[in-house]
Amino acid sequence: MVELDFTKLDGLVPAVVQDAATGEVLMVAFMNPEAWERTLATGEAHYFSRSRNQLWHKGGTSGHVQKVKEIYIDCDNDTVLLKVEQVGGAACHTGMRSCFYRKLEGDKLVEVGERVFDPKEVYGK
Amino acid sequence: MVELDFTKLDGLVPAVVQDAATGEVLMVAFMNPEAWERTLATGEAHYFSRSRNQLWHKGGTSGHVQKVKEIYIDCDNDTVLLKVEQVGGAACHTGMRSCFYRKLEGDKLVEVGERVFDPKEVYGK
Repeated sequence: MVELDFTKLDGLVPAVVQDAATGEVLMVAFMNPEAWERTLATGEAHYFSRSRNQLWHKGGTSGHVQKVKEIYIDCDNDTVLLKVEQVGGAACHTGMRSCFYRKLEGDKLVEVGERVFDPKEVYGK
Repeated sequence: MVELDFTKLDGLVPAVVQDAATGEVLMVAFMNPEAWERTLATGEAHYFSRSRNQLWHKGGTSGHVQKVKEIYIDCDNDTVLLKVEQVGGAACHTGMRSCFYRKLEGDKLVEVGERVFDPKEVYGK
């Protein structure tokens, strides 16, 4: 297995997630060694949830998994780039296609992204 | 100024850098508050170098700066997406266009990226 350098962020590496079809950057999450191994073994993106402090199978509850199509490693072995098919069309828990749905215009943030679902309908209240 | 959440990574936020013209992900770096402010003030990407432990004006020495065309902030205010024009054509210190020039094929890494310059000619020996 390809070894990543998990030493720089206390056992984590950032993972950039890009839509395999459009190139849109959907989100950034973090992987620990277990998340990396589970991603390679299953072909579905796994991360380490810093807020819940545990392995996170993205979409494991909602069904909105990320099917990994391609994996790239950066020059320092400390960052991963996943090109994925985002099942359900939205990577963000807000229901937006991408977590980067706000653009800086001058000194203001303007919502520019596309809403795919209503989070209340997917996650409940 | 838009406030980012620098608390989750000991004063840093990840910055994903994407080619504004092609959508290719070029690199991931980190910003501290000073790097964020300098990026906004100058329109050229500034990061915090974790290896040198100091502010890093990307391309400040080589001239291969990143002209920031668009800035997006993620849903949690803890990650930045820059769309840039990469002067010189290569973001990676190896001379490759992108730092993500190695693709995972099975359990092997295959070099797939495009080399733009010879690092020995740009940085010396």
